[in-house]
Amino acid sequence: MASTSSLNLSQALLARAISSNGSTHSSDHRVSLSAPSFSGLKLTTLRSSASRRFLPTRSNQSLRVRAAAVQTVGTAADTSLVEKSINTIRFLAVDSVEKANSGHPGLPMGCAPMGHILYDEVMRYNPKNPYWFNRDRFVLSAGHGCMLQYALLHLAGYDSVQEDDLKNFRQWQSRTPGHPENFETPGVEVTTGPLGQGIANAVGLALAEKHLAARFNKPDNEIIDHYTYCILGDGCQMEGVANEACSLAGHWGLGKLIAFYDDNHISIDGDTEIAFTENVDERFKGLGWHVIWVKNGNTGYDEIRAAIKEAKAVKDKPTLIKVTTTIGYGSPNKANSYSVHGSALGAKEVDATRENLAWPHEPFHVPEDVKGHWSQHVQQGASLEAEWNAKFAEYEKKYKEEAAELKLIITGELPTEWEKALPTYTPENPADATRNLSQQNLNALVKVLPGFLGGSADLASSNMTLLKMYGNFQKDTPEERNLRFGVREHGMGAICNGIAHHSPGLIPYCATFFVFTDYMRAAIRISALSQAGVIYVMTHDSIGLGEDGPTHQPIEHLASFRAMPNVLMLRPADGNETAGAYRAAILNRKTPSILALSRQKLPQLPGTSIEGVEKGGYIISDNSSGNNPDVILIGTGSELEIAAKAADELRKAGKAVRVVSFVSWELFDKQSDAYKESVLPAAVSARVSIEAGTTFGWERIVGSKGKAIGIDQFGASAPAGKLYNEFGLTPEAVVAAANELC
Amino acid sequence: MASTSSLNLSQALLARAISSNGSTHSSDHRVSLSAPSFSGLKLTTLRSSASRRFLPTRSNQSLRVRAAAVQTVGTAADTSLVEKSINTIRFLAVDSVEKANSGHPGLPMGCAPMGHILYDEVMRYNPKNPYWFNRDRFVLSAGHGCMLQYALLHLAGYDSVQEDDLKNFRQWQSRTPGHPENFETPGVEVTTGPLGQGIANAVGLALAEKHLAARFNKPDNEIIDHYTYCILGDGCQMEGVANEACSLAGHWGLGKLIAFYDDNHISIDGDTEIAFTENVDERFKGLGWHVIWVKNGNTGYDEIRAAIKEAKAVKDKPTLIKVTTTIGYGSPNKANSYSVHGSALGAKEVDATRENLAWPHEPFHVPEDVKGHWSQHVQQGASLEAEWNAKFAEYEKKYKEEAAELKLIITGELPTEWEKALPTYTPENPADATRNLSQQNLNALVKVLPGFLGGSADLASSNMTLLKMYGNFQKDTPEERNLRFGVREHGMGAICNGIAHHSPGLIPYCATFFVFTDYMRAAIRISALSQAGVIYVMTHDSIGLGEDGPTHQPIEHLASFRAMPNVLMLRPADGNETAGAYRAAILNRKTPSILALSRQKLPQLPGTSIEGVEKGGYIISDNSSGNNPDVILIGTGSELEIAAKAADELRKAGKAVRVVSFVSWELFDKQSDAYKESVLPAAVSARVSIEAGTTFGWERIVGSKGKAIGIDQFGASAPAGKLYNEFGLTPEAVVAAANELC
Repeated sequence: MASTSSLNLSQALLARAISSNGSTHSSDHRVSLSAPSFSGLKLTTLRSSASRRFLPTRSNQSLRVRAAAVQTVGTAADTSLVEKSINTIRFLAVDSVEKANSGHPGLPMGCAPMGHILYDEVMRYNPKNPYWFNRDRFVLSAGHGCMLQYALLHLAGYDSVQEDDLKNFRQWQSRTPGHPENFETPGVEVTTGPLGQGIANAVGLALAEKHLAARFNKPDNEIIDHYTYCILGDGCQMEGVANEACSLAGHWGLGKLIAFYDDNHISIDGDTEIAFTENVDERFKGLGWHVIWVKNGNTGYDEIRAAIKEAKAVKDKPTLIKVTTTIGYGSPNKANSYSVHGSALGAKEVDATRENLAWPHEPFHVPEDVKGHWSQHVQQGASLEAEWNAKFAEYEKKYKEEAAELKLIITGELPTEWEKALPTYTPENPADATRNLSQQNLNALVKVLPGFLGGSADLASSNMTLLKMYGNFQKDTPEERNLRFGVREHGMGAICNGIAHHSPGLIPYCATFFVFTDYMRAAIRISALSQAGVIYVMTHDSIGLGEDGPTHQPIEHLASFRAMPNVLMLRPADGNETAGAYRAAILNRKTPSILALSRQKLPQLPGTSIEGVEKGGYIISDNSSGNNPDVILIGTGSELEIAAKAADELRKAGKAVRVVSFVSWELFDKQSDAYKESVLPAAVSARVSIEAGTTFGWERIVGSKGKAIGIDQFGASAPAGKLYNEFGLTPEAVVAAANELC
Repeated sequence: MASTSSLNLSQALLARAISSNGSTHSSDHRVSLSAPSFSGLKLTTLRSSASRRFLPTRSNQSLRVRAAAVQTVGTAADTSLVEKSINTIRFLAVDSVEKANSGHPGLPMGCAPMGHILYDEVMRYNPKNPYWFNRDRFVLSAGHGCMLQYALLHLAGYDSVQEDDLKNFRQWQSRTPGHPENFETPGVEVTTGPLGQGIANAVGLALAEKHLAARFNKPDNEIIDHYTYCILGDGCQMEGVANEACSLAGHWGLGKLIAFYDDNHISIDGDTEIAFTENVDERFKGLGWHVIWVKNGNTGYDEIRAAIKEAKAVKDKPTLIKVTTTIGYGSPNKANSYSVHGSALGAKEVDATRENLAWPHEPFHVPEDVKGHWSQHVQQGASLEAEWNAKFAEYEKKYKEEAAELKLIITGELPTEWEKALPTYTPENPADATRNLSQQNLNALVKVLPGFLGGSADLASSNMTLLKMYGNFQKDTPEERNLRFGVREHGMGAICNGIAHHSPGLIPYCATFFVFTDYMRAAIRISALSQAGVIYVMTHDSIGLGEDGPTHQPIEHLASFRAMPNVLMLRPADGNETAGAYRAAILNRKTPSILALSRQKLPQLPGTSIEGVEKGGYIISDNSSGNNPDVILIGTGSELEIAAKAADELRKAGKAVRVVSFVSWELFDKQSDAYKESVLPAAVSARVSIEAGTTFGWERIVGSKGKAIGIDQFGASAPAGKLYNEFGLTPEAVVAAANELC
């Protein structure tokens, strides 16, 4: 990285994004970004002129408003062209849904005005490099309305959404799937659809900007300076995760977060009157937001512009712009009803809508003047990025060290030899809880990884997640790296997804008790699906937590995450394995990792290693020869010690016993057949596993003839040792099972 | 039931509660309710007299206030006795936590005043029959403070919490576990601890009261008339589920829900300033609640009383009483800090606290005057219940039909021959989606089950959950049975837990897309743990939903619930199996059921039956003899059809093929070994399973030599048929796998 010049930083990032495309879910032809020729771009001045810009406005007042709103980009359109552009967006959505005979036309039709103003007049982005670092971020939290976003990306000149892509909406391997997916469509920042997630992601994106700006900006060079915009609907507003995240956004004073609430009074079940009559404005004021109401979101373009201007002027609070719209605006018979929410309009109603909005064009048609107007964004975007690159070059000259750090965050490259920071242990080191060993790792990693930050959902002192070198990220101390999420697990996970998707080198971790992954499972699934390498630090991982009882004791959770695609579920047994788990987590930037950690002390076991963890399952001790032990004992986490103790007993009785640590099923699964056979030889069917969780799934490892020891009922409230004995998680039980098998 | 007289309705219910005690988690000696002798109770008038009641008050104003607050129960204590009682509560908590060296003393010390006033002056209950139907309900949403509740139950005379139980706090098989558990401790209404759940349960309890009152009360006989009280803390306030449920409570106008917000400014991470600075009052006003602030919750007893009086006077809104308290009140060195939240005070600080509060008594001591005062509640409770029984006798005389229905709701008995309402199908019936077949069942069941009610999280028309005979449960139409939850899955689940725990005969169902169980998993786990027989109607259960794409397509969800204890996970394949799934769900009142239902049409298969579903796994077709087929094909839900088609092909090729429907693993697991062998003979290792979900866990069924066909990655956005082909979920794949094995 040291040799990367500032001008080609973006190119490096773009190339990286393209090369990292070989993920589980993206087939080659699904994303075919053509790398732009940066050398061809010139730092031309923007084409706009004051006289042209203001020509078409209707009043002096709106003149002033628009002047402010459009300050960041080029030539504004006159009102008739604005309306034409908005109708273009509406019909691209209508036509795509119609062709797919599936999708959600209602939102794009209602939100087209705010969408147009955002992408044409307000937002700063470079369509030919969707990964330009200092771009404004946009999140469509109401993800079902994705045709709005696809239409905007199409008009703005993103290569990812071309006319053919619109025509392939919701089809196999298209770049325009049924909900926005960042891993399919460059230009989409995060994966949305499950309601409420997107606004929480937006909070994470805005947090990332505020944090990085505080760390890296200089009085003479504000190298980080972008807004985060979001559109959310009534459904998002009802979801608890949205309230959690918005409460934090207010607390943190995320002034550059501007959320548009598409207030259309319609959800799938009909008018929101039947289930949603709260006063959203009042709630958001209570949450510490600035609230603006645009009463005419359908045609009140200047109202929208004025609201954005006002929002930008409020620097210490996030802003909610409630925009009252008509769902399905333009459809004469279906607008303002749930029937336009999630189905194609039907040929007849499409015709009626064309007539109603005076739109004589063929499906998918973009009028030439609209096309011409939007075409400015390619050059403008290139200019914006080039200007920023020049600014970065200045920055780099003057602030060499900071620039080097920032580059790591921008590109996601890991510093050389970062792994040397990981602590190692010998059996002579004192017994300790893996949650404490985790804290040693967190504090070691934060010293070498500039993008490492995180925190707990009000359990920092139980999860052991405080970064001792740093203070708390707060409204007035945003440069700090300890995040304090309060008791908001779901919001925490979704915010971390936003942080992870802000920059490849931001590595967020978050923590709670393992059982409370139930609260945030929807966010964890989005991490997995959207390839966000969030690190979930989950302590109190079994009945070993003791007296708090069954409400706090995870039973089914290990299995439930082993069953989830693209998750690294790690359950380290001691210090070396905890370090190995963090190593795996840091290296897997497109896979979330979940570390299940103990509350109780565990010994440093002979034979464990960071390298072993890399394999997922490995031998920690063996007194057999010829890869043919009498019995294989398999343990994870806190039960590996029990397996080791049982092995001692069995060996005393003359058995040849292998002990295998099975710290991560997913990592083991990636190993070669030869390696797997070297650990779990097919010929040895005498296998006993022990894990303080459900036995569900363990047949895969121990086979039909093996025996899985676990706990297939809820736990109980009592001291941990008592529980282990009563539920039969003991060396004696392992010895007995082994003796039955060999 | 027809012969049950009104007076012994309570006895029947109590007996039922005792007999149903043989649940998974309660050992015999854990709950040993001694059945009270009802014949010995007399309908004596309450012992209070106006002159005695008002003697000890301090001012005319407080006189009036208290007169209102204590209107429902007997003799009020004078202020010094009130203080003594409050300190008794505090020290019972302190001493229990100290003896266990584990637990949370801070909340009980701070909330003792409101706890005392509620249980001694306000609430109507019968300690000798915790299941008396018309009791006021109390929920400690901040469940970690359970010693508050145990101390109150102890003082009030509940048999479930005696001195020995306090001394066994948090010990193996005690009735005083680390968080309140309804299945361990009669007098505890719901299981709390995971924050935010309790307040949502309270919304469900209050909804149940409002609904039943609207259906059964008569102008001359208000047979249902109780309040629901709840204490929640800062942690609960931060959780999204609480906001979801409270938004609904406001929408529904649950005027008899009164929640105390223990505003102590401390959570585990320290002062709430670090993560929770929103204006809660304003948010709750926005949610449609009446909000009162008691500024001195530590000693402002009359303030608390006045607030309750005011709350009761507001009949169209729920009330939040924000009570500002000091966590750990009385502890000179630890009060008002997080250190008193979740650990024993330590001997030295206990001594200091005793000195500070002038409490010279031994641990666990209840002063005689306090004991004497509280002893009135046994007789008062008996009187309250006896009065109500007399009222019910009147009701029964006059409103025979309604009384019979209400009795079923109170006792949980199912009407005779209810099962005859379930629809059955033949292969000649048209193909249909199981979500539609589910709706036929819902509408059939609501006709015969008086306590059946439910709804969807804004997907009624997709989940197909509307009860056609009924309107919407709303503020002004609470007698209706369609619940409209809005897009609030988590709140929905937790509210349904509350409804289920209100009365044994209330059977709530709730619905969303199967993938969104991720949003409500914490509530589903509480259903399972607390033995709430909620029915989860989960449609769109696989990639078969098509174009909405991977954010909406469940992959790991079947496995994740099969791994959860005490859940019936059901995936019916057609009409008969859907009816069978509902039959199992209705019969298992102490186990939540999750029905995974298809969006797409499925044929009515030959061989399926309601009786088959009862067994969990059963043979739907077989051309082998001697229990020795060449291969066993196993399918669930929408893939059973694929297995059947593959069998046809294989049979044409001369194979002896058995097809097994594996609709519920848990029900199959309960069958005899002989039955299991008759379906899956150990000698037949050639087994192929097919299910449109993860293969994780299927080794248990197909064995090491079998083959599980499924989908171990995220889905995609495309038409359903395309997805089935692309992901290899086809008869051809099953035939190929079978041919490899036999």
